[in-house]
Amino acid sequence: MPIPFNRPHLTGKEAHYMYDAVYEGKLSGNGKYTQLCQRFFEEYYGFGKCLLTTSCTDALEMAALLVDIQPGDEVIMPSYTFVSTANAFILRGANIRFCDSRSEEPNINAELIEELITPRTKAIVPVHYAGVACDMERIMALAAKYNLWVVEDAAQAIDSYYTFSDGTQKALGSIGHLAAFSFHETKNIISGEGGMLAVNDECFKARAEIIWEKGTNRSSFFRGEVDKYGWVDIGSSFLPSEIIAAFLWAQLEHLEQIQQCRKAIWQAYYDGLQEWAVRHGIGLPIIPPYASNNAHMFYLICQSLEQRTALIEHLKKNRILAVFHYLSLHKSPFYAPRHDGRELPNSDRYSDCLVRLPMYYGLEVEQVVEELIKF
Amino acid sequence: MPIPFNRPHLTGKEAHYMYDAVYEGKLSGNGKYTQLCQRFFEEYYGFGKCLLTTSCTDALEMAALLVDIQPGDEVIMPSYTFVSTANAFILRGANIRFCDSRSEEPNINAELIEELITPRTKAIVPVHYAGVACDMERIMALAAKYNLWVVEDAAQAIDSYYTFSDGTQKALGSIGHLAAFSFHETKNIISGEGGMLAVNDECFKARAEIIWEKGTNRSSFFRGEVDKYGWVDIGSSFLPSEIIAAFLWAQLEHLEQIQQCRKAIWQAYYDGLQEWAVRHGIGLPIIPPYASNNAHMFYLICQSLEQRTALIEHLKKNRILAVFHYLSLHKSPFYAPRHDGRELPNSDRYSDCLVRLPMYYGLEVEQVVEELIKF
Repeated sequence: MPIPFNRPHLTGKEAHYMYDAVYEGKLSGNGKYTQLCQRFFEEYYGFGKCLLTTSCTDALEMAALLVDIQPGDEVIMPSYTFVSTANAFILRGANIRFCDSRSEEPNINAELIEELITPRTKAIVPVHYAGVACDMERIMALAAKYNLWVVEDAAQAIDSYYTFSDGTQKALGSIGHLAAFSFHETKNIISGEGGMLAVNDECFKARAEIIWEKGTNRSSFFRGEVDKYGWVDIGSSFLPSEIIAAFLWAQLEHLEQIQQCRKAIWQAYYDGLQEWAVRHGIGLPIIPPYASNNAHMFYLICQSLEQRTALIEHLKKNRILAVFHYLSLHKSPFYAPRHDGRELPNSDRYSDCLVRLPMYYGLEVEQVVEELIKF
Repeated sequence: MPIPFNRPHLTGKEAHYMYDAVYEGKLSGNGKYTQLCQRFFEEYYGFGKCLLTTSCTDALEMAALLVDIQPGDEVIMPSYTFVSTANAFILRGANIRFCDSRSEEPNINAELIEELITPRTKAIVPVHYAGVACDMERIMALAAKYNLWVVEDAAQAIDSYYTFSDGTQKALGSIGHLAAFSFHETKNIISGEGGMLAVNDECFKARAEIIWEKGTNRSSFFRGEVDKYGWVDIGSSFLPSEIIAAFLWAQLEHLEQIQQCRKAIWQAYYDGLQEWAVRHGIGLPIIPPYASNNAHMFYLICQSLEQRTALIEHLKKNRILAVFHYLSLHKSPFYAPRHDGRELPNSDRYSDCLVRLPMYYGLEVEQVVEELIKF
């Protein structure tokens, strides 16, 4: 496919840093590059303690362990999201209360959350779709009112911001008590597979490190805080290899350049398709006034499944790969029998009508725009 | 430290394959290199379906999901093992019945297993310590008699074999219903962090792939067996990045060379230390007649904690790093309050008296032997 949906971008120094990690004698987790990456995120975006993980899924699983999900606890999240948002909590025994998306864009409709809260509700998991912020001010207020944890699924939301009504701006992932990021190859900043947990609430910081280190107090030991280390809690091996962290560090050194390039592509799509979209009744991305745009994704919202299928086919014939995205989780084979029966029409509409256009560093966006305009 | 305990070994092609993965446009999991590695293991060692994971811990967690551990189920394993052997099952609600080690070497004493079996027992997890086989014939017979699953913790056991009483020989990891391997930087074959699940029992193969792919039937979809894929089960993101698989593939190409080198170092330790060990009442590794030696580790068994501490100090002064190993899990802060109170004296003895000598490709073993003989 001459224009694939995604093409991983190397900044040039990935292999160099990987070799450097070998010369340091350290390829397993939590070495120099892991710490460089973690410190960068803490300082650049104001996240709390950052811990690299092998995937965003794993970061969400750490969050589910930290907020201490017990069988029967309820978690509120959008239905239009990736399976891992839900699975991470289901593995700990949670029931999911799926919430519909906004009509303007695929993010969770924060106005519908309060009616889903029950005495069993433990957490809200807003997913920043396409890197565009959910209405975090409203969600954090609800969490405060009902004493709930907020876990931001910021898989797509690196380098994106939310502006509060008083004008203050905070990076996505720094607002909830916990936040999970992805560095999967389709993201802005990549390490193939990879992720990170941002631990913003002080109360989770010590235990997060233990759970990350397989339930041991190994990190305290290396800081000299305890004189031997052992098994003190449940946990898993959430640390990625230093090879992954070294790769990620090479990406982070070029963060601004990558973001500039992606934003230019996004804008070229937007400017090039505006007129055409109106003519065909196709929706372009809407960025709410409180949100920034990190150019993670450029999507179209077709009028129907048929129109979307025709559009994808048209591009495919011209050797351009555009792809649809999630299927509503409340209608999945796994969760449909467990769902409470509510209709979630916006989620279903995005399942049927949303299509993502190619988006990667170095994309010749004009070619895609040209082919679309012929549709 | 001029002679560290471990030094990761590069075979030379790691970065080349990583770049090749990028040119294939695929850095996330389950690409060309993942499949090359998996097929290699299946064909070379006769494992069932192989699935690379981000760690051996994750492979053990997959095993716990597959054997369907429910709260209150019991799992039998040695106390002298890494925390992950236990944590993987505890995360699913299991109670652990820790078993003592053999007096001759640290592996689980298979003669003590039967008395620990109750109606709640679901699985036995033999750990092949130092890559030396547990008594698998006896363990598999017990599993058949009581209808239990056997999950081999083969973290250290790549390229090692068990010989049955009828003379047939099988690779460790191909005998139990499931087996977990590690490619942590301290292992014979490495990818920094990394692991693999070998699925030997046919009944687990289809579900293993789903659990590995985040609970989706994505793999069936790509084989054209279903016309769309979705959420069908619990699961997690167990796949490593192609960067990790590419690295591992470069290692596997040199498997025989690595093994020859390690075996020569192991033998040099053994030959060089035999007389000295007898003189000091220090034990050298014992390989039972049914087991092979994969030269994963060379350990000494001191007469006491004091002797071990003095020996480690002596080597450290001469800038050689030797390290002790596990602390009995039944005595850990996390599990002591949950343990059934049985004494496990051999496990405690290895906790106090076992010390591991430096062991890596390219080690100047004569220097270590020389310094030890001065002790």
